[in-house]
Amino acid sequence: MGKRPRRRRGSGREAKRAARRQAIAPMAAWVDRKIPYFEVLDEEAVELIEHNAETVLEEIGIEFRGFPRALELWRNAGADVDGERVRFPRGLCRSIIRASAPSEYMQHARNSERSVMIGGDRMVCVPAYGSPFVRDLDHGRRYATIEDFRNFVKLAYMSPGLHHSGGTICEPVDIPVNKRHFDMVYSHIRYSDKPFMGSVTHPERAQDTVDMAKIVFGEDFVAENTVVTSLINANSPLTFDETMLGAATVYAENNQATVISPFLLAGAMSPVTVAGTVTQILAEALAGMAYIQLVRPGAPVVFGTFAAAVSMQSGAPTFGTPEPSLIVYAVGTLARRLGVPFRSGGGLCASKIPDAQAAYESANTLQTSALAGVNFMLHTAGWLEGGLAMGYEKFVMDADQAGMLGVMLQGVDMSENGQALDALREVGPGAHFLGATHTQANFERAFYRSAVADNNSCEQWEQDGSLDTAQRANSLWKQMLQDYEAPPLDAAVDEALNEFMTRRKSEFEDRDY
Amino acid sequence: MGKRPRRRRGSGREAKRAARRQAIAPMAAWVDRKIPYFEVLDEEAVELIEHNAETVLEEIGIEFRGFPRALELWRNAGADVDGERVRFPRGLCRSIIRASAPSEYMQHARNSERSVMIGGDRMVCVPAYGSPFVRDLDHGRRYATIEDFRNFVKLAYMSPGLHHSGGTICEPVDIPVNKRHFDMVYSHIRYSDKPFMGSVTHPERAQDTVDMAKIVFGEDFVAENTVVTSLINANSPLTFDETMLGAATVYAENNQATVISPFLLAGAMSPVTVAGTVTQILAEALAGMAYIQLVRPGAPVVFGTFAAAVSMQSGAPTFGTPEPSLIVYAVGTLARRLGVPFRSGGGLCASKIPDAQAAYESANTLQTSALAGVNFMLHTAGWLEGGLAMGYEKFVMDADQAGMLGVMLQGVDMSENGQALDALREVGPGAHFLGATHTQANFERAFYRSAVADNNSCEQWEQDGSLDTAQRANSLWKQMLQDYEAPPLDAAVDEALNEFMTRRKSEFEDRDY
Repeated sequence: MGKRPRRRRGSGREAKRAARRQAIAPMAAWVDRKIPYFEVLDEEAVELIEHNAETVLEEIGIEFRGFPRALELWRNAGADVDGERVRFPRGLCRSIIRASAPSEYMQHARNSERSVMIGGDRMVCVPAYGSPFVRDLDHGRRYATIEDFRNFVKLAYMSPGLHHSGGTICEPVDIPVNKRHFDMVYSHIRYSDKPFMGSVTHPERAQDTVDMAKIVFGEDFVAENTVVTSLINANSPLTFDETMLGAATVYAENNQATVISPFLLAGAMSPVTVAGTVTQILAEALAGMAYIQLVRPGAPVVFGTFAAAVSMQSGAPTFGTPEPSLIVYAVGTLARRLGVPFRSGGGLCASKIPDAQAAYESANTLQTSALAGVNFMLHTAGWLEGGLAMGYEKFVMDADQAGMLGVMLQGVDMSENGQALDALREVGPGAHFLGATHTQANFERAFYRSAVADNNSCEQWEQDGSLDTAQRANSLWKQMLQDYEAPPLDAAVDEALNEFMTRRKSEFEDRDY
Repeated sequence: MGKRPRRRRGSGREAKRAARRQAIAPMAAWVDRKIPYFEVLDEEAVELIEHNAETVLEEIGIEFRGFPRALELWRNAGADVDGERVRFPRGLCRSIIRASAPSEYMQHARNSERSVMIGGDRMVCVPAYGSPFVRDLDHGRRYATIEDFRNFVKLAYMSPGLHHSGGTICEPVDIPVNKRHFDMVYSHIRYSDKPFMGSVTHPERAQDTVDMAKIVFGEDFVAENTVVTSLINANSPLTFDETMLGAATVYAENNQATVISPFLLAGAMSPVTVAGTVTQILAEALAGMAYIQLVRPGAPVVFGTFAAAVSMQSGAPTFGTPEPSLIVYAVGTLARRLGVPFRSGGGLCASKIPDAQAAYESANTLQTSALAGVNFMLHTAGWLEGGLAMGYEKFVMDADQAGMLGVMLQGVDMSENGQALDALREVGPGAHFLGATHTQANFERAFYRSAVADNNSCEQWEQDGSLDTAQRANSLWKQMLQDYEAPPLDAAVDEALNEFMTRRKSEFEDRDY
């Protein structure tokens, strides 16, 4: 796990609570990977896809829509600009990226012990993003509110498996569209001290995010450091639109990080094959990340990938199936060859409720993403029905899985204690290890302890009420919210943030777009 | 997928049914793997574990209990036999195995198109094994009967993701313990034409299994070929008992395959660390497989591993957590270095019901096993509550996952059609691929189609009754049993099997052990 020890708290009550949470898994700033990456493409296949992506960039090109500045930058960089279509000499995008994009970067949190390194052999797990709805067992599915948003920030803050507070965890629809970014960014800052993501729905909202970050971190610090990572989706196929380019440009100018993410439902927004989809992803990501480097060389960029397969019967997106897994494995290889951090994965599923389908699909995607070497795992926890709903129960179930991934990526302890030859000598044939010296010395931290699994006998489980996982998870998130205590925030900073929001909100009318 | 095309059937009705099943995934005799293995140990770690396992064999040794013949064979082979404890010169077991154990073998099915190759780059998925209970949504949990057993044989026969009929799928407790093996073996032969496993609870029952196989395949054929693969568990730690040695010896003498399986709840029956547990697994498997080679050089053996982690709070076994996954990855590497087929994995879980816990844990284990290179995946489908119950719903849910693994292991299609450059050229920026020529030509087989997932919109799902996965699976297995048609079996063979069973059953009293 990451190198930053969890900060010690003063109060005995809080210390006890922290200890209880710690019992689930150690709270670490990120996961340090010690096992290899899993790769499904051989050298020849990788080179073929890279070649084909360059062919796409050269022959077909990418549209940069409604954003003349991008066309100007591309023209100056030597690309062929025809209307809004940009065609790129072979290798241009790659060479721009390799010349200045960092292979990893620190995203600072307001609590420096929670700052995350993104890239290299590290994994940072981030809540799901963008749902208009929330769901829980008590009230079913409903539109999300700012209270839901705050709740998920608190749950992410308290989850050892999650290293990041995320961005638009859910859409607070009780606040006007053009003002809710203030409340979202504020909630991340106020109710958590983990790093967070910024608004991307308008360049001004990106600037507001940066300005609020300056209040927290100081202007000078933000000028020199990355304190926000934000999600820029391509409008696939082969298109970036004005909104995303505008927001991306603001972040890049401010040296803040962007995740350039082809967003594909394969078969609808990309070819119906894995290799074809991966080719398109590479082409789009190359063009988008190179654009960021043209805006400000050295601004952190992350190679993003969101890929589901479209059901050829209904057109609906499907998750957790083998083709999207192969895509994630393949793109992981391509991102490492390019030398930039990689974002994908998470607990993706099509299920409407936190049932077996949700869990199979989420586990398949989580395992794949961890083994593929995802550095920034957006959508780790909470995702339901193709991202349309954030589930309270699903959130704590997925966060538990994230904790397991963190342990798995640490690999096998080959120390003398890990080898345990003395335990084998002490116990010998036919006896048991429960009371062995080695077992007693190691049992407390030996195996991952799930927060939501029930491992009891059937009889015990029946006595406990025959609860399913979702019911246990329902109790868990409620208990967590009850136990929640906000991390300290400097009163002057809090006041300045509120003043800024009040002032800015008064400067324009409410709008629902 | 395996090379044997599904046998064509005559009747139009059956052909339509077959087509419906085929639509889920192609029916193949096994999975041909085209992607790499995932390995978590580096060369140094592997050599250290191999060294330590030899130290265990040399210093501590293995007990072969109640079976003098094994001690005699070991004495003759150069081992140090002290009472029932056998200690082995370093490298002895490995050299015996490498001298004669086949790296892969064909297990013949009575329908030759269903014969499976076990070992190498292949995966064979096998139902779960050994449960005294069954569970379904209609009747909950109850003792299994021979009718349940037959039902699961039929479901496995109809599941494209399963390549094998399994063994003691569940214990038919309505038949006396000492006679139920006849009905189990007969059910596998009568209601399926996939390969099956034999009885291991007594040497005579192993011999009955072989004798029944001779009726089906012919004496001469069985003398020269492997038609049964059977499960021999070690009595871990470091012990083989009389029952298992007796059954294993019968199978080996008849050139039939055995899976030598250390059966470990880590922390109770092995050290509480991954490396220590893997060391013990290797020592036990080396001794067991070498013993088989002493009985009959060349008899097929499979390196088995069953490993769960014991909850250090309750002593209960836990599944789907990172430590057992690391064990499976590590042992896969060791088995390949030894040059024998590898058995592990399956849809393991501790959950009592087919809920999210069951699915997370099963998916984690299934993904791990597939990537680790398991050749013979016992417990692929149906497993609930640590193996105490076979679930009807869980069975079809897991079998669906097995189908997905088969697709994933085939890797990325890098053909020209797979690369799909023409599709990218045809569609271009901002359009969609649904109507593209390439999409139309490929959509029917493009993506895995799950039999139990619901990918519809929330509104549609609600209109359909808001069913969870288990409820949909409940309908599916009932429909499958309704659609079931037995594969043809020669009437003379059927009669001979029944005559054999009737005669043998009359030769001794019923017993419940």
